[in-house]
Amino acid sequence: MVKIYGMAQSGNCYKLQLLLSFLQQKYEWQDIDILSGETQTPEFLKRNPAGKVPLLEIESNTFLPESNAALFYLANESTFWPSDPLQQANVLRWMFFEQYSHEPYIAVARFIKRFLPKDHPRHSELPELHQKGSTALKLMNQHLADNVWFVGDTISIADIALFAYTHVAAEGGFELSQYLNIKNWISQVQQQPHYTPMVL
Amino acid sequence: MVKIYGMAQSGNCYKLQLLLSFLQQKYEWQDIDILSGETQTPEFLKRNPAGKVPLLEIESNTFLPESNAALFYLANESTFWPSDPLQQANVLRWMFFEQYSHEPYIAVARFIKRFLPKDHPRHSELPELHQKGSTALKLMNQHLADNVWFVGDTISIADIALFAYTHVAAEGGFELSQYLNIKNWISQVQQQPHYTPMVL
Repeated sequence: MVKIYGMAQSGNCYKLQLLLSFLQQKYEWQDIDILSGETQTPEFLKRNPAGKVPLLEIESNTFLPESNAALFYLANESTFWPSDPLQQANVLRWMFFEQYSHEPYIAVARFIKRFLPKDHPRHSELPELHQKGSTALKLMNQHLADNVWFVGDTISIADIALFAYTHVAAEGGFELSQYLNIKNWISQVQQQPHYTPMVL
Repeated sequence: MVKIYGMAQSGNCYKLQLLLSFLQQKYEWQDIDILSGETQTPEFLKRNPAGKVPLLEIESNTFLPESNAALFYLANESTFWPSDPLQQANVLRWMFFEQYSHEPYIAVARFIKRFLPKDHPRHSELPELHQKGSTALKLMNQHLADNVWFVGDTISIADIALFAYTHVAAEGGFELSQYLNIKNWISQVQQQPHYTPMVL
């Protein structure tokens, strides 16, 4: 059984929980509190020198960092990872988009608004984060005008990667009501068999 | 024959040129000048709504954005993409690391120092970029203390993705001489058959 080191309120950690729920695959979970420094202890850094969660333990002492790499590993041989090479490349395309052009704005805005005190200086970053995050949301909304799922005809790990922080973007101050295609896509994900909500 | 829309001085574009050179695979190249706005024309945005290069045209009107997704597509069925699923996941782990924790600091510092005027306000970003980029270089150097290549016993697209901006990190103001393992690894890449240098 795989084990996840994670923090339930983190969208990157939720990605793995959501996929494993869809796959009806059991896993162990160990809570790691990022905010109190538990990713920076010598013990944790031995497991993941990058000091980040989620961290997937595949078997005893075999660790895989990076949420989207872990999604790939867990989805392998399921329908969440397509078999066609061009579709596979497009799944990765949206996952790299998520990590480069989406998460650094949409997840970070949520982190600042939700986890930092109201007078924290990082609140000054919000206008720029909202501008760049909105660019990502517009691109997603545009793609979903012609596509039911991000790649191909079924839900894939590209959808799961993008869903994690998009469906809670309002917590970071993004107004999702103007992105109708995204709203419909969020409902679709939530209506999939064995969907599990994020711990809020 | 695939076609690359790119700018030769961009590390993200060079990744594809380097892999195709290693594979001895011919390709078409179309110069796109980012600095003069050629990624933002209506014609280009039809091909890639994200308005970025590199963009890989696999066949007429089949486009694949995101440098690391394109590396995956081109490396498929070569030794640059391992066959073992855990090794594959680790290749992706380093490629996601590159896009999230490396490129936004090391490539951006180089962009500011190399392509912007000396009095441009973005020069004020450099101290933070150097700090965060150094964290990425330390992690790479530490990994290479016990590993000849980033994943497994041969060069993979993880090495190519990380090589692109690491080997020109000095242009962004990073001092590579303190990272001996990285320096050795750079030499190894450069000594591979059919290596091609970046257009500087």
